[in-house]
Parts: sequence; structure tokens; C-alpha cells
Amino acid sequence: MNIKMVVAYDGTHYCGFQRQRPEAGPSIQGCLEEAIARAVGRGVSITGAGRTDAGVHAENQVINVRMETSISPGRIPYAVNRFLPPDVVVKGAEEAEEGFHARFSARSKTYRYVIWREPFPSPFHRRYSWHRPGPLAVEAMRAGAAQLTGRRDFAGFQAAGRPATDTVREIMELRIEERASLLLIRVVADGFLYKMARNMVGTLMEIGRGRLSPETIPAIIAGRDRALAGPTAPARGLCLEKVCYG
Amino acid sequence: MNIKMVVAYDGTHYCGFQRQRPEAGPSIQGCLEEAIARAVGRGVSITGAGRTDAGVHAENQVINVRMETSISPGRIPYAVNRFLPPDVVVKGAEEAEEGFHARFSARSKTYRYVIWREPFPSPFHRRYSWHRPGPLAVEAMRAGAAQLTGRRDFAGFQAAGRPATDTVREIMELRIEERASLLLIRVVADGFLYKMARNMVGTLMEIGRGRLSPETIPAIIAGRDRALAGPTAPARGLCLEKVCYG
Repeated sequence: MNIKMVVAYDGTHYCGFQRQRPEAGPSIQGCLEEAIARAVGRGVSITGAGRTDAGVHAENQVINVRMETSISPGRIPYAVNRFLPPDVVVKGAEEAEEGFHARFSARSKTYRYVIWREPFPSPFHRRYSWHRPGPLAVEAMRAGAAQLTGRRDFAGFQAAGRPATDTVREIMELRIEERASLLLIRVVADGFLYKMARNMVGTLMEIGRGRLSPETIPAIIAGRDRALAGPTAPARGLCLEKVCYG
Repeated sequence: MNIKMVVAYDGTHYCGFQRQRPEAGPSIQGCLEEAIARAVGRGVSITGAGRTDAGVHAENQVINVRMETSISPGRIPYAVNRFLPPDVVVKGAEEAEEGFHARFSARSKTYRYVIWREPFPSPFHRRYSWHRPGPLAVEAMRAGAAQLTGRRDFAGFQAAGRPATDTVREIMELRIEERASLLLIRVVADGFLYKMARNMVGTLMEIGRGRLSPETIPAIIAGRDRALAGPTAPARGLCLEKVCYG
């Protein structure tokens, strides 16, 4: 049976979604595989839609796992959550088609990045946002975001470490929303290169602070040069919000 | 000089606002007094508007402190925050009139209680909400809330431990709002008896779950009997949202 599950997690204390060498600390994947194995009574191997980095959160990560179990899909979250720590939660489970693959079947993923704009950090938002006080030219950021939208070669926004050979991705939507003390940056794309979302946010924030102009974006894209872009925004502000399938 | 400060804190790891015997663990008051003392170079004693309980949070607690310092009020948050842990933050400071008293000068306080209604707990809301899955008769809760609004003797909603002699308080507003997976209960009152807000929420939730009828409220008030009311809602869902002065 191929089971699809939706999972939420606070990534603060994890080395990322994927299992790493033990010194790197606990992974979301390891944590879920262990809990599912304990619930169904045999070892399993899961696949996640997005390989979120250390410290990145997820509201609706999607995983799939092939396994035999007598537990009905609707009861699986109850069975698995018993063995999970409180910062990782299975929100739902259902039987998927045999060919369903959490990552390769995904049409698009939505990541949300949160900026906290008040002069002082917030005790409540600090784990889930990047604290950037000071004025922001939000309209210039939107002009920069428009330059990023579409099917483009995002090599200039890919971090070293996990180079993809094909660096063309499509950004279907990149929206910047001001909500009280927060700035929300939402990116919908058919795929993301390594640290691409955080590099785009870092670059947009440099535009907001007047250190880069929106016109730099086409140059970064054309130059395929990471050195031209802004810094990588911290992991804690990023959250995998949604995964869409065909 | 009498300085008024606005403070936010995540109360999860504290024994409450007020200093207690050392075994009880760190208090918000102790934490703030120590940080202010380090910033201004002499011991201080602060007064808070609301004596929030262990585990209760504050977005805008107000304190006042009489002290001499050469630091201008606008710089005080920067000076004090350096010595505070990340779960306690001074958001602002200003000089107040000599007679200003954070608690006795307050006209009203607003507490917000958050209920998380999804079937499974949220890794993000778990520290700041009460997880109550299942259907809720929100309209019945509103009918109960209407019975609580006004100037009344709230002895029936006071917990043992810190009995007030005068148990009459005025609830100016008690509003229940559904927002996605959350239910928000906001209470504005001129004062709160010990655990009154949490006892009211516990009672309203019993009404929502159909275990009490809205008509029980007048009986609890008339009987002045805590035993008739619902259970005390957990501290983590409660947050001091605002304090209003004349």
C-alpha cells in the first residue's frame, strides 16, 4: 500500500528533513520513520516532497511511504503521533495511487518566508521569522519579485553544496504581503534549487533596504552568478506551506 | 523618575509574573528587575499591571519602575534587552507622571485566550493554545458570554488560593471569534480575580461542548459557587494582550 501523509513540524531542533550522519543531530525523516515503524511494527522508508534544510519549518509537508499495515489510513495519524515528539505532527493520511511519489509527483510547492519588522524581536515570532527592523521599500521589492517570476535559469540563486545540473525552474507566483508587524513573502514554484528560496528572500531584502536595485535581478539571472545576489536569509523564517499535485 | 515600560513575554518557562520563593523557578518580575538593574547600575523594584500566572503569556504587559538613570527613556529598551533572555522583551519605555501606577492606574485589561480546534496539536501553536478538537456550539458560547458581560459578582469564577474580598468586577467586552483553526476568546475587564479568565474560558468551553447550558452562567454568578463552573482552562492559551489607562 502506498500511503500519503501530510506532516507539520517546527524545524528549530532538527538538522533538516533528510537523514544525515548521526553527528548532525536528529532529522525529520528519521523521526517520522522511527514513529511509523513503531506504529506499524516494521521498518519503513519515507520520501518527502521538499527536502527542507536545518531549521526550516513545514505546515504541510507531504510524504509517501510504501508499507503493509492493518491500520486504516484514517487512524494512521493517531497511531503515529503517539510516537512523535510534540514538534512533529502527522495531520492526515490517505491511500495514494501506486505510482504516487511525494517529490516527483508534485506540481508545485509553496514556501512562505516571514520577516518580523518591529524594532525589537518578538518572543512569539522569533523561532519563525527573520528580525529586520527599519524601513523597507516594499514596492521596490515587488518590482524585484516581478523580475523573478516566470520560467528562468535560477543558477544565480543556487547555493554551493548541492549543485543541480538543470537549474531552470518556474516561479508561478511570488507575492509580498504586509500584515501588521510582519512581511510575508510567498513563493510558488515547480521546484527549488538548494537554498534558492532563502537566497531570493535575502536578495529581495537587500532591494527593500535600498542596497540593491530591482534591476539587479535580471543581471543576477543572466550572469548565473551567486556572488551578485544578496545574502542567504536565515532558515528559521522559512516554512513549507503547501505542496500541490496534478 | 517614574518609567513606564511595555513588555512582551513567552511565559512557558516562568513561574508567573510575580517573584516567588526560589524553588518555584524564575519569574518575569525577577528577570526584568535583574536586567534593569544591570542596565542602570542599581537595584530596582517594578510593578506590573497584571500578575500573570505560571505559563501565561503577555504581548503588552505594562510595568512601572521608579529609578534614576541617565539613559533616555527611548534608549531604555535597547539597554535592558541586552540583559534579557529571548523570551522576555521590552518593547517600549517612556517617562510617566509621578503618580502613575501600572496596576492601580489601569482602566481595563484585555486577555486573549486561544483554542486550537484541529484534530491534532500544532507544533507552532502548542505553546500558545489549548488543543480542543471536536465540534463546538459557538453560538451557545456567545450566549453564555453575554450572560457574563457587565458589572457582576464573579466570586463563582475565582479560584481558591488568593481570595479577594471584593469580588465584583466589570466585564466590558467578551468576544468569541472563529479564525481558521483557532477560536479566540477576548475578555476586557476592569480587573480579574485569581484565575477568573481561565475559569470563564473553561466554563464557556463546557457550554461549547454541550455539557453546560448558557443558562448555567446566571446560576454560577448567583450561587457564587466555583463548583458549579467548568474546569480551569490551561495557562498556555492565555495572553495579556493590552492594558488601557485613563
